[in-house]
Parts: sequence; structure tokens; C-alpha cells
Amino acid sequence: MPKRQRQQQLAKIIEENPFVTDQELTRMLKVSIQTIRLDRMELAIPELRERLKMMAEQTYDQVRSLPLHEVVGDIVDLQLDHSGISYFEIREEHVFSRTHIARGHHLFAQANSLAVAVINDEIALTATADIRFIRPVRLGEKCIAKAYVRSGTGARSKAKVEVFSYVGEELVFQGNFIIFRSGAMNGSEGGDEHENRH
Amino acid sequence: MPKRQRQQQLAKIIEENPFVTDQELTRMLKVSIQTIRLDRMELAIPELRERLKMMAEQTYDQVRSLPLHEVVGDIVDLQLDHSGISYFEIREEHVFSRTHIARGHHLFAQANSLAVAVINDEIALTATADIRFIRPVRLGEKCIAKAYVRSGTGARSKAKVEVFSYVGEELVFQGNFIIFRSGAMNGSEGGDEHENRH
Repeated sequence: MPKRQRQQQLAKIIEENPFVTDQELTRMLKVSIQTIRLDRMELAIPELRERLKMMAEQTYDQVRSLPLHEVVGDIVDLQLDHSGISYFEIREEHVFSRTHIARGHHLFAQANSLAVAVINDEIALTATADIRFIRPVRLGEKCIAKAYVRSGTGARSKAKVEVFSYVGEELVFQGNFIIFRSGAMNGSEGGDEHENRH
Repeated sequence: MPKRQRQQQLAKIIEENPFVTDQELTRMLKVSIQTIRLDRMELAIPELRERLKMMAEQTYDQVRSLPLHEVVGDIVDLQLDHSGISYFEIREEHVFSRTHIARGHHLFAQANSLAVAVINDEIALTATADIRFIRPVRLGEKCIAKAYVRSGTGARSKAKVEVFSYVGEELVFQGNFIIFRSGAMNGSEGGDEHENRH
């Protein structure tokens, strides 16, 4: 592939998926990592970490339902009661010693705290979750979780939030969460089946 | 209530539920904590922490599917492919700063690692989980999780494991897990939908 064509393709891939790593780009474009880095420099496209920082700095909605530092993963996009994206790198402390595979509760924690963070309310408590672990996530891999509020955006309702977590293009985890917001809870006092907070 | 009758009742309660705390006993028997402690001393019943240690030291099956230190919570009883019990105290690092309520992924981690620990196989991977958070668990509370293997004890099958987590007598969390063991996975290679390990 000629250089010009390759660079156009590289720019397009990154525009469509700003979370793509240089490593993934080498596989997609079948060139060395040095070539990818040079191409990015020539195109003035910053590296992944810088891209994430820029996304995080761009104005997005503020998390209301919990302090930002209690969100597991870095929030890189947030539209309250609509959708959110977070980024979580699997480090030594997140994996099983025998297999170097991420422990499930860390993937769950990223997804669950994002599902809570997208709720536009001071109080948002997880009632139930149905989750699927689709493929193992390994040490060093970068998990991008995307949450979508599917229903229940009214003040007094429970919200259904779907979360999809990816490594590169691959879906690795999926979860459906039912989140109660304060309005909904006042309406269901006494049924106290869903007051836990996550 | 006369002392003798109270002590009989106390002994019976602890026999039926060795995880009961002195605090819970004061509420159940409507006496002071000093009275509970004296009663236990006279009856030679050790305190909760000692009782748990004794239970843990009694021979139970060895965890095979993960190293013991990677189980979240202390295992106090285990019968492989049948049932298990673990104990987990909610500490500062497990709660939300605003509310002092335990974060959901810690309750999930206790339940999920117990569901994996009861499997009699070197490899046991969580495929799916349906979970319910029934009531908030607070700083200092002690969570007792009980896991039951409901089906799939054959070598090549997936196991269904039910977990119930209690604080005292109260159910606080419930989860249904589908766990794959190595035999089942060899049979489903290529469908790789469930190879994550927890």
C-alpha cells in the first residue's frame, strides 16, 4: 500500500475509533510500530494516552451520582441519561497470578460504575445486573466500556443501562443493569429490594 | 428470662448460626454485650473471630480452581462440587466515601470467587452471572456468602452455582452463576464465549 493511502486509512481508523492502540494499528495496516509512529507524527495525531487525555479534558457532563475518583476506570465521554465511555487498563493487581487473566469483578466494577455514572441524579443504586464474560482479558490490555441508557430517563423511574466492554474491536464483556434513581426509590419505599449503591 | 434459660437459648442460637455476632445476640436476647460475653465465657463458647478460625482450621476440601489467597473473603467451609461458605468484613476500602455503603463489586467479588472455589476442577471460568443487590451493606458489617452447586457436577459440564449473601439473618445479595470447567470448555472450543476466569 502506498504511504499516502496508508496514512489516509490510518487517519480514518483513528477517527472512527480513537481508542485504537498503535499495536492494533500495526496488525490492521500490516506495518511496523515504527511506521505507525512516524505516520502519526506526520499526520499530527497524538498517541493513545494523549488522545484519551484530550477527550477527557473536552467538556463532557459532570458525574453526579458518585465522586469522579470512585469511578473505576477513566471516563472519557459522558452524556448524562444518554451514554458514557470509560477506559481501564488491566494491571498486575487486576489479574490472577496463575493465568494473568483479569478477574471478573474488575470488569464488572468498570461496567457497573459507568452504568451508575451516566445517571443524571444524586442517587443512583444498582438493583440487578445480568452479565456475560465473553472472552478473557489479559494483563496489559485496555478495556473500553460503553454505556447506553436504554429506558427510564424520567426522574421517578428505574433506568435500564446496557454496557459493552471492548478490547480493540473485540467485545469482551456485556452487562445489563437496572439502576434506581432517587425518584424511583421514594416511590418504592418499603419494598426495599434495591437500595444498594454502587 | 432466667439466666439458665438465656444461656441455653444463646448456645442454641450459636449452634444454629455460628456466624452470629455478639452485637446481634444482644438484640436477640435483649441483654447487654457484657452479659453476652460473660454467658459465652461460662459456656466456653469462643468469640466470633475464634469460632471462624476454628471452622477454617477444621478439615474442609482444598480449593482447586484458584490459589486460596485469591479468594475474596475467608473460606470457612467447603465441599467441592457441593457447597461452600465464606466470610467477608466490609472495611473502609470497600465502601463509598459519601454513604459508607459497600460498593457492589466487592459483594460480587466475594460471591463470584466462592462460586469458582466450590468447583472441583483446576480450571473454572465464570461465563455469566445474574445478580441482585437486595439491601445496602454498610461499613463494619460482616457478609456471609453461601454457595450451592445446583447442577453440572459432571466433569464435562457447566455448573450452575447459586450464592446467597447474608448479614446476620438478612439476605443482602443473591447471584446465579454459570461456571465452565475445563471439560466443558474443551467441548465448546471455537465457541469461545465463556473463557474468562474469575
